[in-house]
Amino acid sequence: MNQIDLNPQPAARASALPEVTTGPLPASTKRHVTGSLYPDIRVPMRDIALHPSAGEPPVTVYDASGPYTDPAVTTDIARGLPPLRADWIAERGDCEAYEGRVLHPADNGFVTGDRLAPAFAASRAPLRARDGRAVTQLAYARAGIITPEMEFVAIRENLGRTAAVTPRDGEDFGAAIPDLVTPEFVLLEIAAGRAIIPANINHPELEPMIIGRNFAVKINANMGTSAVTSSMAEEVDKMVWAIRWGADTVMDLSTGRNIHHTREWILRNAPVPIGTVPLYQALEKVNGIAEDLSWEVFRDTLIEQAEQGVDYFTIHAGVRLHMIPLTVNRVTGIVSRGGSIMAKWCLHHHRESFLYEHFAEICEIMRAYDVSFSLGDGLRPGSIADANDAAQFAELETLGELTQIAWAKDCQVMIEGPGHVAMHKIKANMDKQLATCGEAPFYTLGPLTTDIAPGYDHITSAIGAAMIGWFGTAMLCYVTPKEHLGLPDRADVKTGVITYKIAAHAADLAKGLPGAQARDDALSRARFEFRWEDQFNLSLDPETACAFHDETLPKEAHKTAHFCSMCGPKFCSMRISHDIRSEAQKEGMAAMAEKFREKGEVYLPKDGAAR
Amino acid sequence: MNQIDLNPQPAARASALPEVTTGPLPASTKRHVTGSLYPDIRVPMRDIALHPSAGEPPVTVYDASGPYTDPAVTTDIARGLPPLRADWIAERGDCEAYEGRVLHPADNGFVTGDRLAPAFAASRAPLRARDGRAVTQLAYARAGIITPEMEFVAIRENLGRTAAVTPRDGEDFGAAIPDLVTPEFVLLEIAAGRAIIPANINHPELEPMIIGRNFAVKINANMGTSAVTSSMAEEVDKMVWAIRWGADTVMDLSTGRNIHHTREWILRNAPVPIGTVPLYQALEKVNGIAEDLSWEVFRDTLIEQAEQGVDYFTIHAGVRLHMIPLTVNRVTGIVSRGGSIMAKWCLHHHRESFLYEHFAEICEIMRAYDVSFSLGDGLRPGSIADANDAAQFAELETLGELTQIAWAKDCQVMIEGPGHVAMHKIKANMDKQLATCGEAPFYTLGPLTTDIAPGYDHITSAIGAAMIGWFGTAMLCYVTPKEHLGLPDRADVKTGVITYKIAAHAADLAKGLPGAQARDDALSRARFEFRWEDQFNLSLDPETACAFHDETLPKEAHKTAHFCSMCGPKFCSMRISHDIRSEAQKEGMAAMAEKFREKGEVYLPKDGAAR
Repeated sequence: MNQIDLNPQPAARASALPEVTTGPLPASTKRHVTGSLYPDIRVPMRDIALHPSAGEPPVTVYDASGPYTDPAVTTDIARGLPPLRADWIAERGDCEAYEGRVLHPADNGFVTGDRLAPAFAASRAPLRARDGRAVTQLAYARAGIITPEMEFVAIRENLGRTAAVTPRDGEDFGAAIPDLVTPEFVLLEIAAGRAIIPANINHPELEPMIIGRNFAVKINANMGTSAVTSSMAEEVDKMVWAIRWGADTVMDLSTGRNIHHTREWILRNAPVPIGTVPLYQALEKVNGIAEDLSWEVFRDTLIEQAEQGVDYFTIHAGVRLHMIPLTVNRVTGIVSRGGSIMAKWCLHHHRESFLYEHFAEICEIMRAYDVSFSLGDGLRPGSIADANDAAQFAELETLGELTQIAWAKDCQVMIEGPGHVAMHKIKANMDKQLATCGEAPFYTLGPLTTDIAPGYDHITSAIGAAMIGWFGTAMLCYVTPKEHLGLPDRADVKTGVITYKIAAHAADLAKGLPGAQARDDALSRARFEFRWEDQFNLSLDPETACAFHDETLPKEAHKTAHFCSMCGPKFCSMRISHDIRSEAQKEGMAAMAEKFREKGEVYLPKDGAAR
Repeated sequence: MNQIDLNPQPAARASALPEVTTGPLPASTKRHVTGSLYPDIRVPMRDIALHPSAGEPPVTVYDASGPYTDPAVTTDIARGLPPLRADWIAERGDCEAYEGRVLHPADNGFVTGDRLAPAFAASRAPLRARDGRAVTQLAYARAGIITPEMEFVAIRENLGRTAAVTPRDGEDFGAAIPDLVTPEFVLLEIAAGRAIIPANINHPELEPMIIGRNFAVKINANMGTSAVTSSMAEEVDKMVWAIRWGADTVMDLSTGRNIHHTREWILRNAPVPIGTVPLYQALEKVNGIAEDLSWEVFRDTLIEQAEQGVDYFTIHAGVRLHMIPLTVNRVTGIVSRGGSIMAKWCLHHHRESFLYEHFAEICEIMRAYDVSFSLGDGLRPGSIADANDAAQFAELETLGELTQIAWAKDCQVMIEGPGHVAMHKIKANMDKQLATCGEAPFYTLGPLTTDIAPGYDHITSAIGAAMIGWFGTAMLCYVTPKEHLGLPDRADVKTGVITYKIAAHAADLAKGLPGAQARDDALSRARFEFRWEDQFNLSLDPETACAFHDETLPKEAHKTAHFCSMCGPKFCSMRISHDIRSEAQKEGMAAMAEKFREKGEVYLPKDGAAR
């Protein structure tokens, strides 16, 4: 048992249990594709049905939403999701269940009584690797073993396609995106360190997904309680809400109290990888005094969270003592919380960070649970003025060194990136990351392309995110409208996720991900054929699209109208285009045009081109 | 008199008169800079005052909002704005007042009685060029005459700076952005056709602005009544609202009834250039039947609108008969309203478009009033699938030919661009436009970088807009969240404008516009120093930034708090950065770091880099 019930009256607090949004999106059906190597795997996809008049098959889209959108499943937050990977993990025979760490009052910020969030009841004994073995997807890939996780993500990336899409389009800047993803390709990409499947053996509820530049660009949604606001129930609700709209992973950045319990509720109900910054909890355990942090407290926190099932840890081991002076003349200093905490520790103790000194031991822990590294960019720029400076790139060099160490320990690695960067400096970030970190997947926050729009930083950053995703970033960390101003609420989470789905999809189109354009084409055909409901249903946010349309033309009849309120019936270019098309068909357009061209120009400019 | 009062009881309809938002933005003061060549010109700028603790001068920003934000001016929509250019125009001595065209019932869609919008009372006799002379800024530039308009925009672009900003940064792709804009530079850019000052001699209320790739990127906001919704009063309110948030020009795309009167109200109250698509009104005059359009109706409409003072006309003269077959197999056909109307006309009559055939005559009208051409991209792609296709680029070639004709007639020209374009195809649009159209300013709609997000197309398009603005586009036509779904309301107009100010500013930073980063830096310093009010006031939308902050920390005390609800006090990286900075100062950081480096690495990875 890794959990002790510190909550004396759980029943009395039922009202605090999370309520989450369930049920399918409009016109959508959950479909599961089974594996060939592993017939018991069931890979979820979402089929969006079109109106019969379209004469088109349903459009299949990536589905990160988990069982919550499956009417065939009754989810129960108090019991958690079914442990679909439990057998896969057990069958590998390289793990053992053990008693685990004892929960300390410090783990929940010393909160007691009514202020303590209820413990998650249905806990399991944690697993860890047997005899120092590596239980990571990287270790398996290097051993030539295709895991169920690998076949799962291969099927998932193809969205059910079994044939190549031709012709290919796009510019991939030297990536090697295949026509069709095979389990063998997944294995090779993981073995090369170019992709990761974040999948802690203690998070069996996970539906595996892959992060790498030869796959679809993924997005992460941050959430978490803080000392100032928000509760456990809200965070679980936001997690389910974020994946409903397409978040591929979720980071629980909780600080303050109830941090252990909140994380347990999230993990047990999360079908997506969960990332954390263990330093935040370690700091809580030393009452927020950075100088009091120690390797022992940090190590204890890593094990605590690894046992719970966290899939990736942000570790700010690249912040080194000699880099700190490089930040002193910056406009915005150090804006990474983890980075600033470590910098303060280093400075106070006048020594190298314990994260850097104990990095090999951290790797040992990560490999025992298959927690992936997300090597934090503690010195990322927090303003346009500080972008691409010496501090940022010095840290990146160190992250490259650490990547090699982690890889030598069979640990999966991705690298975090900025931040605030004007457009003309974005590509240098991608190029340097690829060169320095051996093509380990890049995972960036935006970047924000200007500092002047607080309240709209989902947009300032979507511009940079789309670009860097195109250039090769594997996962984009969303930014919500509340960035710099406050914690995101439910509406902000949705806005952030939809905005980043846009950025990721725009990147997929530009890098030429096979099949990505199918959804655009289906939606555009629906638009051209005035299939309004299809247009809404195919969009990233059907509810908003429909609501905006209905603001001016609410009647059902208008859902089949061959115009909208933008232009009205007389000026609808699409309606006129249909007239043109039928006229052209009537008269044999090509022949007519040919004849016209033979006659020569009707009008030849006589007095032009004088300059 | 170019207007006849068709409204029998104007007083009875006072309630229909527009109410607009006035008053300065927070902490902002309107300042006027006078000219050197023309001491009577008063160029508006907005100074944003900072908290005394900043020890910094006010930040000056571009101010498109006109007298509405000037507490020293009492605006009166019924009387219109003062005609500040009237003397400049008169002093050139090349214009004459004349009786003008008689208003026809068709001009307002044959609407009568109560449904007729009130006429604007204070009308003037229109001006036109005397004796066929060219009264365009291009003609003056070619003659070596620096006009007051040219000095006005030179001062405006510098935002009051009188010295170069060093060092320069950015990538301008072969543009020639000067350190400081002089009236001579403006003259040369206009003479070369690389920039325009849209400024109809019948729009003396205009505060001149310049559109060209060696200047700040500008944005346009579309509005307009349609047959389905919205009224004249709403449109005037939306125009004032749009410029309050930074729209540099406004296009009145009204269709339906009251189109003449609505435009008159807008023009008489607009300090920014107003653009239109005259074809829309011409189509109304023939009851919406495209085939019934004629050169005569179109010509009449051009003169009607030129007399009112429209500053630029979108003219879809590039859509030619032989191009129409190229659109037949497109996913979304022809999506430009003007393009589809002309295509239908061409096809029906089996002949070349009257816009193309009469282009030289159109130029004669434009030069007599200094209406600038915005050569419409009638065949722009309406979906990702149709981007950069043969139809689109065939039209662009024709626009290049027409540019030469217009230039030969001393007319100012800009070129409209797409549309829907995936990121990897955007730069080709800019490069082809520069090459084909002799560096005439490019004016693009977005482009939208994916089709799958109706309801969020301000974002899908801001990505493309920022990029193409960086590549050299001079003006970005905004897209609102209602694109494809309905007409924008007031909130949508603001969202569209702010989103496009972000895109334009991101582009200015990336192309290295001198001084552009000053606002980012001031805001970032305010952020780092916890000057919350300064951060809000310096942002593009102070109201939203403040409201978002106050959602979680509403008290006045929190406006000086050294943290926010995002991280809370313990985890505030910026607060910790200050600790680091003061600690560093205390101990002589650089010296300490040097000593540390001399001692060598504390930790040397021993088992890394094994692969």
